[in-house]
Amino acid sequence: MATMQAAVLHGVKDLRVEEIAAPGAPAPNEVKIQINKVGICGSDVHYWEHGRIGSFVVEAPMVLGHECAGTVVEVGENVTHLQKGDRVCIEPGVPRLSTPASHYYMKKGEYNLCPDIFFFATPPDHGSFCDFVNHPADFCFKLPDNVSLEEGAMIEPLSTGIYAARVAPVTMGDVVVITGAGPIGLMNLLAVKAAGASQVIISDTVQARLDVATEVGADDVVQGSAEELQHIARELTDGRGADVCIECAGHPSALNACIGAARAGATVVLIGMPPGDTATVNINDMIIREIKLRPIFRYNNTFPTGVNLLASGKVNLKPLISKRFALNEVPQAFEYVVENRATCVKAIVDVS
Amino acid sequence: MATMQAAVLHGVKDLRVEEIAAPGAPAPNEVKIQINKVGICGSDVHYWEHGRIGSFVVEAPMVLGHECAGTVVEVGENVTHLQKGDRVCIEPGVPRLSTPASHYYMKKGEYNLCPDIFFFATPPDHGSFCDFVNHPADFCFKLPDNVSLEEGAMIEPLSTGIYAARVAPVTMGDVVVITGAGPIGLMNLLAVKAAGASQVIISDTVQARLDVATEVGADDVVQGSAEELQHIARELTDGRGADVCIECAGHPSALNACIGAARAGATVVLIGMPPGDTATVNINDMIIREIKLRPIFRYNNTFPTGVNLLASGKVNLKPLISKRFALNEVPQAFEYVVENRATCVKAIVDVS
Amino acid sequence: MATMQAAVLHGVKDLRVEEIAAPGAPAPNEVKIQINKVGICGSDVHYWEHGRIGSFVVEAPMVLGHECAGTVVEVGENVTHLQKGDRVCIEPGVPRLSTPASHYYMKKGEYNLCPDIFFFATPPDHGSFCDFVNHPADFCFKLPDNVSLEEGAMIEPLSTGIYAARVAPVTMGDVVVITGAGPIGLMNLLAVKAAGASQVIISDTVQARLDVATEVGADDVVQGSAEELQHIARELTDGRGADVCIECAGHPSALNACIGAARAGATVVLIGMPPGDTATVNINDMIIREIKLRPIFRYNNTFPTGVNLLASGKVNLKPLISKRFALNEVPQAFEYVVENRATCVKAIVDVS
Amino acid sequence: MATMQAAVLHGVKDLRVEEIAAPGAPAPNEVKIQINKVGICGSDVHYWEHGRIGSFVVEAPMVLGHECAGTVVEVGENVTHLQKGDRVCIEPGVPRLSTPASHYYMKKGEYNLCPDIFFFATPPDHGSFCDFVNHPADFCFKLPDNVSLEEGAMIEPLSTGIYAARVAPVTMGDVVVITGAGPIGLMNLLAVKAAGASQVIISDTVQARLDVATEVGADDVVQGSAEELQHIARELTDGRGADVCIECAGHPSALNACIGAARAGATVVLIGMPPGDTATVNINDMIIREIKLRPIFRYNNTFPTGVNLLASGKVNLKPLISKRFALNEVPQAFEYVVENRATCVKAIVDVS
Repeated sequence: MATMQAAVLHGVKDLRVEEIAAPGAPAPNEVKIQINKVGICGSDVHYWEHGRIGSFVVEAPMVLGHECAGTVVEVGENVTHLQKGDRVCIEPGVPRLSTPASHYYMKKGEYNLCPDIFFFATPPDHGSFCDFVNHPADFCFKLPDNVSLEEGAMIEPLSTGIYAARVAPVTMGDVVVITGAGPIGLMNLLAVKAAGASQVIISDTVQARLDVATEVGADDVVQGSAEELQHIARELTDGRGADVCIECAGHPSALNACIGAARAGATVVLIGMPPGDTATVNINDMIIREIKLRPIFRYNNTFPTGVNLLASGKVNLKPLISKRFALNEVPQAFEYVVENRATCVKAIVDVS
Repeated sequence: MATMQAAVLHGVKDLRVEEIAAPGAPAPNEVKIQINKVGICGSDVHYWEHGRIGSFVVEAPMVLGHECAGTVVEVGENVTHLQKGDRVCIEPGVPRLSTPASHYYMKKGEYNLCPDIFFFATPPDHGSFCDFVNHPADFCFKLPDNVSLEEGAMIEPLSTGIYAARVAPVTMGDVVVITGAGPIGLMNLLAVKAAGASQVIISDTVQARLDVATEVGADDVVQGSAEELQHIARELTDGRGADVCIECAGHPSALNACIGAARAGATVVLIGMPPGDTATVNINDMIIREIKLRPIFRYNNTFPTGVNLLASGKVNLKPLISKRFALNEVPQAFEYVVENRATCVKAIVDVS
Repeated sequence: MATMQAAVLHGVKDLRVEEIAAPGAPAPNEVKIQINKVGICGSDVHYWEHGRIGSFVVEAPMVLGHECAGTVVEVGENVTHLQKGDRVCIEPGVPRLSTPASHYYMKKGEYNLCPDIFFFATPPDHGSFCDFVNHPADFCFKLPDNVSLEEGAMIEPLSTGIYAARVAPVTMGDVVVITGAGPIGLMNLLAVKAAGASQVIISDTVQARLDVATEVGADDVVQGSAEELQHIARELTDGRGADVCIECAGHPSALNACIGAARAGATVVLIGMPPGDTATVNINDMIIREIKLRPIFRYNNTFPTGVNLLASGKVNLKPLISKRFALNEVPQAFEYVVENRATCVKAIVDVS
Repeated sequence: MATMQAAVLHGVKDLRVEEIAAPGAPAPNEVKIQINKVGICGSDVHYWEHGRIGSFVVEAPMVLGHECAGTVVEVGENVTHLQKGDRVCIEPGVPRLSTPASHYYMKKGEYNLCPDIFFFATPPDHGSFCDFVNHPADFCFKLPDNVSLEEGAMIEPLSTGIYAARVAPVTMGDVVVITGAGPIGLMNLLAVKAAGASQVIISDTVQARLDVATEVGADDVVQGSAEELQHIARELTDGRGADVCIECAGHPSALNACIGAARAGATVVLIGMPPGDTATVNINDMIIREIKLRPIFRYNNTFPTGVNLLASGKVNLKPLISKRFALNEVPQAFEYVVENRATCVKAIVDVS
């Protein structure tokens, strides 16, 4: 049986690059993909540091990685729109469609809510820090010539921003507040600008991150203070407040800062998952000013949009790449990312 | 100067029926209305018991009452669509349009969010437990012959349900959970049934209220348990949970019960204002299952809908009237309502 | 090889009940269904009379029928939510998912737009006037005990009304105009009432059909005149016009009558396919008053709604059944339907 | 009585610059504005050439002009957000709110549909080719320092594009087709790019206009052929067709070209008013592929968006200015515009 290299998480901080079984022939609706580039996501790092994210617990060795792009090397018999040699980005979540609830969400177009969804590197599903994967062809999207494989790998984290901007929705001329200037906050910054936001204010406690935000297009940066955030949002909007706020920091205080900065009737999109199961929320302000709370969990139907945004130059992801590693350096890469959290936006693993 | 009778709140539990100045001639865009029927709302009672609702504080004597219908007795010179003798229901909130923010929300059709809105019996604005009011004609809606003045007065509380059903939205065939079977919960029950909900499950801690709910059309009633609520909602929906939940109880635990009973992707409409400014919310469950939180504050554009629903018989409000009082009995009426909270749905003051 | 009876269209007016091959074992995600009841649809009759509907041409013998319900007799190995003996209604359109365009619409929840959709009795796909079909389990919906198989078969035509009401959308208190009181017009009447319409006005040139409309709940009926339709719609809406109009007659003049009866900003839903490829439309009135045109083609995500509406009694389809036939009487049934177009709403074939 | 200069249309091709009465003091909610810049719109030219646009007929001398910006010179007593010296752009349409229908649309936020709307230079309302106007302050929007008065004047025609992009809606990554590369087509091009469109294809019969389109950002230009338009739209979208098409040419053939280029489920926004009251439309293709038709008439709530887009640099209108004239040259300006239709995008009258 053929084997391949993979970065496998065996326990907290126990990440090993080792030989595992390579996938066999793709199923009729699948393609086999040689993985080329994989980004390191905060969730990969979180599993590595804690062995779990909330109720998702790593109970058996699991290949990490889910932000990836690669090259088609074999095509299942029913696949007509992809062929050997095509460069593709890979949508990591695929509904298994095993229950009526899963069919229900799939048919409505909200397949990210399917309770039985397969997702790279979410226990117990293996991820893509490895040489090959078989994946359903309709969750693989061909990259045009002017989009690189590294950019293709970053369509996954960009998807969070695309989805946030879509469901909020962010529309042209909007003033947007983003709390948290880590990788997800920056992806949201790029996405809401592409969606027409005319002013984006972003906050973080770490100045180095805000410097990156400024570099990639933030109109205003705020270091930490909810009051200042609220003040700037009011100033830009005749005193009303931001049209949309997006919480990417994962702290209840940031959520309440969003509520405070939002105009009456605005939507606060909630991406950052706070520690613990509950949060203390300024609920009365939300009621009196009709502030809507829109949590998002992953995304749906974002990859074609991401490809279009990159191909047309509406979004430029290249400045977000901080560092590159080889597949056999993945354990060191994780160490690096944790040690350089303030400045390392996106580390990319160059698998092949 | 002409005077009239009014029920004036002078302080906590100090409600007096007394003579006050009657309104003069209506302004060009106003009509003068002889008030006929006024419902007693939970907020009237709350001001009477506590002198405040959150940040709205009664600091000077204030006429209570805002659920009202009456008869046009004089017509401003620019008013063309109403005439003397017309029976009308009265929308109690009218934007003053004094600031750019107010213009902004008015023009977008979200005039309930105008920060300078006038609203009957919200300090410092006087209410309608009195003989006459002058009111902008475009916030008065003619009642067809087959709609009584008492029903007309109840279009105001019904509006909360109409608005909740519209923004959720509740659509035909939906399974809906309502927490709280007081007057607002029951109005929501009637509204969501009119909007096509096929199953409505309502919960309360008080059995007497649930009996009323059953009487007016609840499909299931649950006494108090979040687990049972969740169980029934799942059972009716192939295990998914309710399509829409509406929180009318004003308790964080009810809000979390709604979150638990909601299906992934559902909306929880938040009407009940919990005591205190904050609430501890099951935020991670909201994120993982994308449960949206949609607070509502009053309503907009609901009165024409309310008139249509009553005129066509789609909604029958008559069973909700528990008791009637004269204007000079208003203080006793408030005592009665408080003492009979479990069973008194809607008390109506028969002003004239 | 096992055979079964089926009603097969061999050419214009050449419909034969004959023995054809019965389906074998269901595929892993399919169920085998003993067909019990099938409604005769206008499109079945149209294929029988003309051999085509627009660009859909019958070029080989084809089993007709697509409004059906039956009983599960065998279950594919991956099917978990249905079992032998379950009574189900059958959604006749199933995307084949063979192209990127088909994946695109499926993932967005608009699977009725998949260009490669399989659909019962749309050439070259066979229909369900036969004893058995194999069908994907996720397009079969279990009927509750209080919903009969005949009602189950009629969820298909009701779906057109559910979808029209959803996309318009029809919301509570709306005034709705429907042109055409044939089976589709009546299904729309029932659906929009369930969705909260407070007044439904329906027009046709044939009085007998309007009598049926009145019987099943129309608030006003109009025999033929666009002017009268417009007048009634204006009268019910302070002079504005109908909130939603639904064209079910298949004539450009009816479409223009809808435009005339609609209020500024309203939506005209277009279901009826006019003869020929083009229609002369009152386009300037549409622009000046922003009348939106929303054509619909079949439906998506309507069957669970239909089941809920029938189970809860929000919709009563029973009065629409005009006549019943046995499977071997299908040719005579078609003759009957054509001869009694004015009065026969829904003929049901009792297969078993 | 004070007088001022104005360009008054007396009859077909009879446009005179003459002295007329200047406005008196502004009403309490108005400001008096010294007009600085006014663009010449196709509708101004159409009134000049034909004395009418459809059912809008010039029956008495009328001041033309409605694309304008100016400087506040006097402030009504109730106006708080503007002061003398403020540079403002002016929204030319203001509902008179004299009927229930007008209240209805105003309260819903669709005030462009108010049947009694006042609109500059729409008979019988005078326009703004003159020195001073009094205008409701809430329809005047302060220009930031970095937005010029000429740009301010062009927010009016840009509004058509903003509104089209909003209602379609155009969202990020969309492929958009625009038919007609005159001033309105170009404004739509700029707006949809700002709204995130990744590819915009624009067609016209005149090459000179397409050259301008390319200059201001069109991704593809097509001279005249519906087939080529359709081909390019398919090519950019895996064979599906454009996500949104916007008809700005005012010809039924362009409308049908839009329908042909649209993907299944897409929206065709209809701006261009074809000659005559009716158009022959490819209705069956619209039904089978669910192509929605969304006519728009003017716009609502676009001016704040326009100001934000200009202030932030998301839209650059300056390249669209082709020629400038003084107020007393207005008649010559109209001659110029007509003679140079192919190349003159926007002529601006420099009033003061």
